[in-house]
Amino acid sequence: MDVKLINPFLEAAINVLKTMAMVDAKPKAPYLKKERTAIGDVTGIIGITGQSEGSLSISFQKDCIITIVGNLFGSPPADLNDEVRDAVGELTNMICGDARRRLESQGIVLQAGTPTVVSGERHVIAHIVKGPVIAVPFSTPKGDFVVEIGLSK
Amino acid sequence: MDVKLINPFLEAAINVLKTMAMVDAKPKAPYLKKERTAIGDVTGIIGITGQSEGSLSISFQKDCIITIVGNLFGSPPADLNDEVRDAVGELTNMICGDARRRLESQGIVLQAGTPTVVSGERHVIAHIVKGPVIAVPFSTPKGDFVVEIGLSK
Repeated sequence: MDVKLINPFLEAAINVLKTMAMVDAKPKAPYLKKERTAIGDVTGIIGITGQSEGSLSISFQKDCIITIVGNLFGSPPADLNDEVRDAVGELTNMICGDARRRLESQGIVLQAGTPTVVSGERHVIAHIVKGPVIAVPFSTPKGDFVVEIGLSK
Repeated sequence: MDVKLINPFLEAAINVLKTMAMVDAKPKAPYLKKERTAIGDVTGIIGITGQSEGSLSISFQKDCIITIVGNLFGSPPADLNDEVRDAVGELTNMICGDARRRLESQGIVLQAGTPTVVSGERHVIAHIVKGPVIAVPFSTPKGDFVVEIGLSK
């Protein structure tokens, strides 16, 4: 996978969370994902087609997404309910869209499907893609999340 | 969502499971998905773009996928491990590809991303899409699975 495909997704995650939810997300060191460990309590997933095929996921710890959704709507949700799932879907959509615009300015045109959101404590996410899966963990003042990108080339 | 988009996915699921895993899957009555209840223990998800945008998921009960993977590889896996996740990804890919070929013969051209597989007991799947989400439950001699399709038009 071309590394220049990765940064736009990370910049998009930081930008969308800052703009929409007033959350400062600090990226930690990216790593190649080998172990398929449980990484979050709610995950947004979106499929990518076009010049490269693959999938993007964003997995949030419960405390992190409760804070983000609270900032979005003014009061924190009681639990990982439909409101949270809808918000994770919308955030995943916005982050993917922001990243695609950044990539287009580099001449890389990707399409995206619509998001699917999975909730369930300690679920495991596996991107089934020919090529490496890059994981970039982020910290926020209220918990962590991780962006994973698997692309075919 | 145009109903003629649905049948090719169902025919593809039946065909792929019969051909690859010698499993007879019997469709039950489809329904519009309103409740986001937990529907399986391992789910393959794939994003769709092209003339319609959306997502496809196939969620298996544990006993069902253990039997399918056992038939694929000759001996049943001990648990919902990486072998099972890879097999679910491959089956999701094949079912989506088979459905897309059927749709192409009707003049409907869709692209697909690569599959993402989620495992975790009683996880909840939400397709975030403008438009209805159709769920079609299937029974097999060894447990159930459900195909869900959300498309934007």
